[in-house]
Amino acid sequence: MKKLWSGRFSEPVSKIVEGFTESISFDFRLWPYDIEGSIAHATMLARQGLITDSDKESIINGLLAIAEDIENGKFTFSKEDEDVHMNIENALSKRIGDAGRKLHTARSRNDQVALDVRLYLRKEITDILKLIQDFRHRLVTIAEQNLTTVMPGYTHMQIAQPVTLAHHLMAYVEMFGRDRQRLEDTLRRVNVMPLGACALSGTSLNIDRLYVAELLGFEAVTQNSMDSVSDRDFIVEFIANSSILFMHLSRMAEDFILWFTKEFAFVDYSDSCTTGSSIMPQKKNPDVLELMRGKTGRIYGCLINILTVMKALPLSYNRDMQEDKPSLFDAVDTVKHTLITINEFFKNIEFKKERLYNASFDNFSMATDVAEYLVKKGMPFRIAHETVGKIVRFCIENDKRLETLSLSQYVSFCDLIEDDIFDILKPEYSVNSKKSIGGTAPEETKKLIEKLKKTELYENNT
Amino acid sequence: MKKLWSGRFSEPVSKIVEGFTESISFDFRLWPYDIEGSIAHATMLARQGLITDSDKESIINGLLAIAEDIENGKFTFSKEDEDVHMNIENALSKRIGDAGRKLHTARSRNDQVALDVRLYLRKEITDILKLIQDFRHRLVTIAEQNLTTVMPGYTHMQIAQPVTLAHHLMAYVEMFGRDRQRLEDTLRRVNVMPLGACALSGTSLNIDRLYVAELLGFEAVTQNSMDSVSDRDFIVEFIANSSILFMHLSRMAEDFILWFTKEFAFVDYSDSCTTGSSIMPQKKNPDVLELMRGKTGRIYGCLINILTVMKALPLSYNRDMQEDKPSLFDAVDTVKHTLITINEFFKNIEFKKERLYNASFDNFSMATDVAEYLVKKGMPFRIAHETVGKIVRFCIENDKRLETLSLSQYVSFCDLIEDDIFDILKPEYSVNSKKSIGGTAPEETKKLIEKLKKTELYENNT
Amino acid sequence: MKKLWSGRFSEPVSKIVEGFTESISFDFRLWPYDIEGSIAHATMLARQGLITDSDKESIINGLLAIAEDIENGKFTFSKEDEDVHMNIENALSKRIGDAGRKLHTARSRNDQVALDVRLYLRKEITDILKLIQDFRHRLVTIAEQNLTTVMPGYTHMQIAQPVTLAHHLMAYVEMFGRDRQRLEDTLRRVNVMPLGACALSGTSLNIDRLYVAELLGFEAVTQNSMDSVSDRDFIVEFIANSSILFMHLSRMAEDFILWFTKEFAFVDYSDSCTTGSSIMPQKKNPDVLELMRGKTGRIYGCLINILTVMKALPLSYNRDMQEDKPSLFDAVDTVKHTLITINEFFKNIEFKKERLYNASFDNFSMATDVAEYLVKKGMPFRIAHETVGKIVRFCIENDKRLETLSLSQYVSFCDLIEDDIFDILKPEYSVNSKKSIGGTAPEETKKLIEKLKKTELYENNT
Amino acid sequence: MKKLWSGRFSEPVSKIVEGFTESISFDFRLWPYDIEGSIAHATMLARQGLITDSDKESIINGLLAIAEDIENGKFTFSKEDEDVHMNIENALSKRIGDAGRKLHTARSRNDQVALDVRLYLRKEITDILKLIQDFRHRLVTIAEQNLTTVMPGYTHMQIAQPVTLAHHLMAYVEMFGRDRQRLEDTLRRVNVMPLGACALSGTSLNIDRLYVAELLGFEAVTQNSMDSVSDRDFIVEFIANSSILFMHLSRMAEDFILWFTKEFAFVDYSDSCTTGSSIMPQKKNPDVLELMRGKTGRIYGCLINILTVMKALPLSYNRDMQEDKPSLFDAVDTVKHTLITINEFFKNIEFKKERLYNASFDNFSMATDVAEYLVKKGMPFRIAHETVGKIVRFCIENDKRLETLSLSQYVSFCDLIEDDIFDILKPEYSVNSKKSIGGTAPEETKKLIEKLKKTELYENNT
Repeated sequence: MKKLWSGRFSEPVSKIVEGFTESISFDFRLWPYDIEGSIAHATMLARQGLITDSDKESIINGLLAIAEDIENGKFTFSKEDEDVHMNIENALSKRIGDAGRKLHTARSRNDQVALDVRLYLRKEITDILKLIQDFRHRLVTIAEQNLTTVMPGYTHMQIAQPVTLAHHLMAYVEMFGRDRQRLEDTLRRVNVMPLGACALSGTSLNIDRLYVAELLGFEAVTQNSMDSVSDRDFIVEFIANSSILFMHLSRMAEDFILWFTKEFAFVDYSDSCTTGSSIMPQKKNPDVLELMRGKTGRIYGCLINILTVMKALPLSYNRDMQEDKPSLFDAVDTVKHTLITINEFFKNIEFKKERLYNASFDNFSMATDVAEYLVKKGMPFRIAHETVGKIVRFCIENDKRLETLSLSQYVSFCDLIEDDIFDILKPEYSVNSKKSIGGTAPEETKKLIEKLKKTELYENNT
Repeated sequence: MKKLWSGRFSEPVSKIVEGFTESISFDFRLWPYDIEGSIAHATMLARQGLITDSDKESIINGLLAIAEDIENGKFTFSKEDEDVHMNIENALSKRIGDAGRKLHTARSRNDQVALDVRLYLRKEITDILKLIQDFRHRLVTIAEQNLTTVMPGYTHMQIAQPVTLAHHLMAYVEMFGRDRQRLEDTLRRVNVMPLGACALSGTSLNIDRLYVAELLGFEAVTQNSMDSVSDRDFIVEFIANSSILFMHLSRMAEDFILWFTKEFAFVDYSDSCTTGSSIMPQKKNPDVLELMRGKTGRIYGCLINILTVMKALPLSYNRDMQEDKPSLFDAVDTVKHTLITINEFFKNIEFKKERLYNASFDNFSMATDVAEYLVKKGMPFRIAHETVGKIVRFCIENDKRLETLSLSQYVSFCDLIEDDIFDILKPEYSVNSKKSIGGTAPEETKKLIEKLKKTELYENNT
Repeated sequence: MKKLWSGRFSEPVSKIVEGFTESISFDFRLWPYDIEGSIAHATMLARQGLITDSDKESIINGLLAIAEDIENGKFTFSKEDEDVHMNIENALSKRIGDAGRKLHTARSRNDQVALDVRLYLRKEITDILKLIQDFRHRLVTIAEQNLTTVMPGYTHMQIAQPVTLAHHLMAYVEMFGRDRQRLEDTLRRVNVMPLGACALSGTSLNIDRLYVAELLGFEAVTQNSMDSVSDRDFIVEFIANSSILFMHLSRMAEDFILWFTKEFAFVDYSDSCTTGSSIMPQKKNPDVLELMRGKTGRIYGCLINILTVMKALPLSYNRDMQEDKPSLFDAVDTVKHTLITINEFFKNIEFKKERLYNASFDNFSMATDVAEYLVKKGMPFRIAHETVGKIVRFCIENDKRLETLSLSQYVSFCDLIEDDIFDILKPEYSVNSKKSIGGTAPEETKKLIEKLKKTELYENNT
Repeated sequence: MKKLWSGRFSEPVSKIVEGFTESISFDFRLWPYDIEGSIAHATMLARQGLITDSDKESIINGLLAIAEDIENGKFTFSKEDEDVHMNIENALSKRIGDAGRKLHTARSRNDQVALDVRLYLRKEITDILKLIQDFRHRLVTIAEQNLTTVMPGYTHMQIAQPVTLAHHLMAYVEMFGRDRQRLEDTLRRVNVMPLGACALSGTSLNIDRLYVAELLGFEAVTQNSMDSVSDRDFIVEFIANSSILFMHLSRMAEDFILWFTKEFAFVDYSDSCTTGSSIMPQKKNPDVLELMRGKTGRIYGCLINILTVMKALPLSYNRDMQEDKPSLFDAVDTVKHTLITINEFFKNIEFKKERLYNASFDNFSMATDVAEYLVKKGMPFRIAHETVGKIVRFCIENDKRLETLSLSQYVSFCDLIEDDIFDILKPEYSVNSKKSIGGTAPEETKKLIEKLKKTELYENNT
């Protein structure tokens, strides 16, 4: 079959080359945006007198009919037509004749694909923002149920100080909140209209780019035609932000995989959200969490993919850029699938509160409380730190715990210590006392949640 | 020497372990921020009655004296003291005694290092924003001098259509403008105060985090103490944005390396900005551009470094995070050094205007103009495209150029073509006609530059 | 449907979780290896008396029937059965009853998937080695036709010294030769048999791993069962080697894209191997080369993907590892598709010999020959270099070329120069004189090619 | 100061450009190899009659004197002289006059730097191979002491089956054994002599490359001069292999960090190999392991750095390649420093054998043994698996363990079960029974270690 651009060519394209250069096998998913963009373009062309109203009607009806056929599985995409743009334009011309041959007036695939991808990504980011919010809502709900659930807080994977489960979960809410912010920043740069840049230099035809932008709901139009067709920043940005999101998801996965070990035993997951072994009859594995952790590699890989593609490409458009889509689509699908699944997964977590409480005062976790107690009694912090360090060493050597030392043993280390020391040697005291902004005190966490709810958290209408 | 945290330890740290875990060999550069943060912290502690005013005075004077010593090269950083924080705190206690031992009240290295890095990066991003603006100003200045300098525009590294040099340069201005925007977005997330999170759970001492934020010029305080000490998003974001910036720099480098080849010969660079060969006496090489292109790898590497470090780390702080600094510092230095150098480099470019003009109508670059001419005469674009394709094939086979065909030859392909065809077969006509928004017409570029100047471009006071 | 491992579970798996954890949508391609491995396993089980001969026969016949159905498109893979292993085992049990339920004796999916991927990759590397050799053969053939085709050699993308086209092409032959070597090294580590490791600890059943290895043509068996199920080195290695291969392909692509520019004009490509523009009727673009360059990002991305997946996974098997396959399959497909296409592409290159010759003595490319001439006359090289540098500067300032200076002008710079200087100022002299091993002299290149042919080059039976 | 290549230049290099392009600040470490290479080169030049014997003597003595000065800190490297090569050549000429100016005969920095880096890397890989062997020896020693130390084996971070500590440690020995193999493969490709390629095309002077190779202990010489100066494969390969090595180190780190948690409590580390907290007096953190895990990012980053640098560089040498060294040096230093430190760290690990034993039969870890027991009694494996799954579920619901069920309870699930079931419900029985090759049975591990010792393991004289 003849290519739409074949006028100057004397030989048809080799089948091997055609198979290597086609993109329809993956860019077909852009069809709704390609058709939406073409309808807006045709509407503008007619308004500017570049095509007749009757041509416009034919084009729009033809495109809508193609859309319907695609939706109903009646449209065959062909590799000979290379990409989604040529497949649709070619089908249109076959259906409606010369009017179809006017659609590409003042347009190149270079600006057309930029438009389609921006429309696609605008939609997908909007969906992802909603999924992030859904998951943050779930975390907040669980946090609210666990404001006073005491558990060990860790640094270096060693028990450090008692915290609350709510506080731990709200750390993720903060992390995913920043992810949301970053994607919103990116959305502003996605939401700019490139059509009209044509091949790279604009056009001598009297088009109206602002009108197309208005029709398609864009906030602005691109300001330089060469940049318009060679810019893929918005894709890189999206995947970079997705990488940070997945970095967060992998950290959360790690926490919950750890907590599900026999050794930690902080949580249990529903049988419906775990899987078994083909050989070991007793196994119940947290595969969802492991796969979420593993898919981080996929997103980091997508990021390096697009960054490498774009490295050192001279202006303006180069065919290398066709390779932007497989990694973009993979990133979008992986982000969405994972957010939906982890949200489902979190419906069914059982926290083992007694175990969490008992672990919370393991490993001398209240040693810092004792040091702060000494500071309040007037001891310089650095000396208090050393004093408590010695008490801990004594406990280790004598197989004691901070709460089982006698007052006289305490006093032998420091005579500032009095009977009130035992009041503070309780995990619940420890967490209640951390009232600094963002500290783990339940009342502070409650305040933060209420504040969040009044701001952007419960809005989920992006 | 005894570590400040050694109370509970019965053996000193092995020298090999000390050498592996120390960070002072690279984090010493944070000293001004460490001291600035400690002064604010001490000021707050005194105001809250956690230390006396006289302790505060001693601390501040001691810290200022240390700062002076460091600046004058009279301070020896020691690996035994591990990091910049311990080096300074330890020196302070040695100098001023017990007051120094109170400085670490309600503070951990976990929140302290987060504070220091945020102060450091806030300063560096501000500097980088200025350097980006400086370079954009230079590009705009050159563009203004070349509004009507016609040159070939490329897609697929093939001459595509005539553009102006100004238009080409303004594409970079757009690209670096987005880089600036992204870094400003990041700056908002850098400019949040983490101190007071302490180890991970906040403190039972009555601190005032908002006052510390005010003293240090932060817009907000972090809202969750666990997140405060385990968050490195702001570093990842900065390096991701730097990666996109370098992707742009590498593309510009590629253009200017190409243009400097004997074959393109579009530009000449000053002898003062090029280098020679140790063996080939005639060589004059564009090393600055090549190194700029090559350093893209460095920044991409920094990005993968920090993303890998953070992957799947459970909450909250883990020592792996110490590895955030070498890549951050390398990225900051590379970005700044490169922007300064490329700005210098662009002072001395000579554009070969005659060569640019002559190349601009090579490769039948005005074929699209002919197609648009036919569209204006009423031919559907797709048919116009094919018709001009055939004309081009005829030219190739007969060794002709579009501007050397006779009218009768044109008419033999399409009787819509008239004598006015020759009016459009001039590169200057071609560029003047591209008046669509962002098109290459000089008047359009001029308008864009004027618009930019009124907005954020000439502000460089970030 | 009930999972094969569901004995200990009280609830079925959620559909969302099933969709997230399944791998059949991509690992179905392992089916021939899964069946091959199962047949060998059953053969061994029977020989060891762990199943009866009649069970073995049923199993083998059942598996062969399944294979036939898959090949004929009559087998439906189901997500409920998770992966290719369970799909086939489950189908087998349905078809042949209890004998099928014995197949998984002394086997886990953990060692089974390791076996399948090793069988798959062994086959694919063997194919890729052949494709690399085919392409090297093509390059050698073109080199042999161009032993004396003189062209400019470049450093810093600046004309440096004359070389031959054969010499330039043989540089790629060396590069791809190392790629072949590396893949052969990797193949040794792929070709090790993991089955029998079972879940992670081996088995108490009396199996014969060496016999399975023999049946499947493996050179060795793995030596530690925990390592056997958690090792993915062979995948990382393969993708790392593919990354270097693509680095080479991207460099070659860049050369040939440059050479196809109007400005270089060193080559022409067949219309059948290039593509056009949707808007610009004259365009003929080297898309194959651009896409080959772009796909480098894809392979680098696959490498970061698998490295990230494996980072910090504790022993032994973790479900994250399921994410090894999408990147492995993508890398294999991309490598093969690209090698086939570039080989096709090189069938049709036309080198423009006159243009190559004329460019070869541009940019004072023989200046080094003059310096070596002076060395032969007794001048220290460093002084010769500087002297020729001054001659070049004189030429630039006076718009001369080295071959158009008069003898007296030469002598004014250095009285060692005599009339024989003009003998060497010919590109063919220059290349002929570079007789050092690996130098560009045609006779040296010829010798190298003959040597290569006697060694491994023309063997393509790996 | 005048550059050695400045003959054709009319202006000195700008200071900013000089600062950006210099490499002496990092390539100075190549000085011993630069001098070694230059001595060999001069020796060859004299033997070929290209310089006199007396010049050769002067050069060698001059170079040795420079080497001594550098070692004694009496030599000042200068940025004006750009790189290590020019610094040394320039100093030599200043010291010995014209003889020094002859050293660069038939040599370019392009082949010189390739030589220096190959000499450097050959040395470093040899050192690293030794360090890997040292560490493998340490692991084997600990394994030999723990052949019968039973512990839980994990999949999905869930207790799976009992294994021995020796078996677990030998998995690492296998992993690091492959790392060693890969580096040896790379060493073959490093150990090839590039000098004589000169700028890119070889030389017209009568040099003897084989003699230089012999003097410097190279096994072969490069076969194509363009490839010789543009090849950086050996660097990429080294860093790729280092990435896999660090992937292994990060996995081992993760195991040992987990085992050191209070919850696992499998190991204790010496106070001399751990560090404390600035705020929490009780903390003892496994920083060495965390930093080892974190430095994985550094090496992955180095890999992406060099791969990105090399992407799409046209032949032959480009200045971008100067950026190969910072990442190579960083990778070499990090690998060596980490191997030395982890070896030290492993001197002091205390394994808590009782805790390991008790954990080994947690989580129904012998369920697979029961299934294999049933297989031996004649039940098809898949049915045995399901039967045991139901027994496990019964245990969970009734808070029982496999070893505390009564025979009648067992029989109620399957009447094949007899009194001998209790013989196998011991972790030591479980591990002893895994006698398949590479299985966890102590006698099998012992056999493997003895086999290893006879082969390459105890050779450490690479």
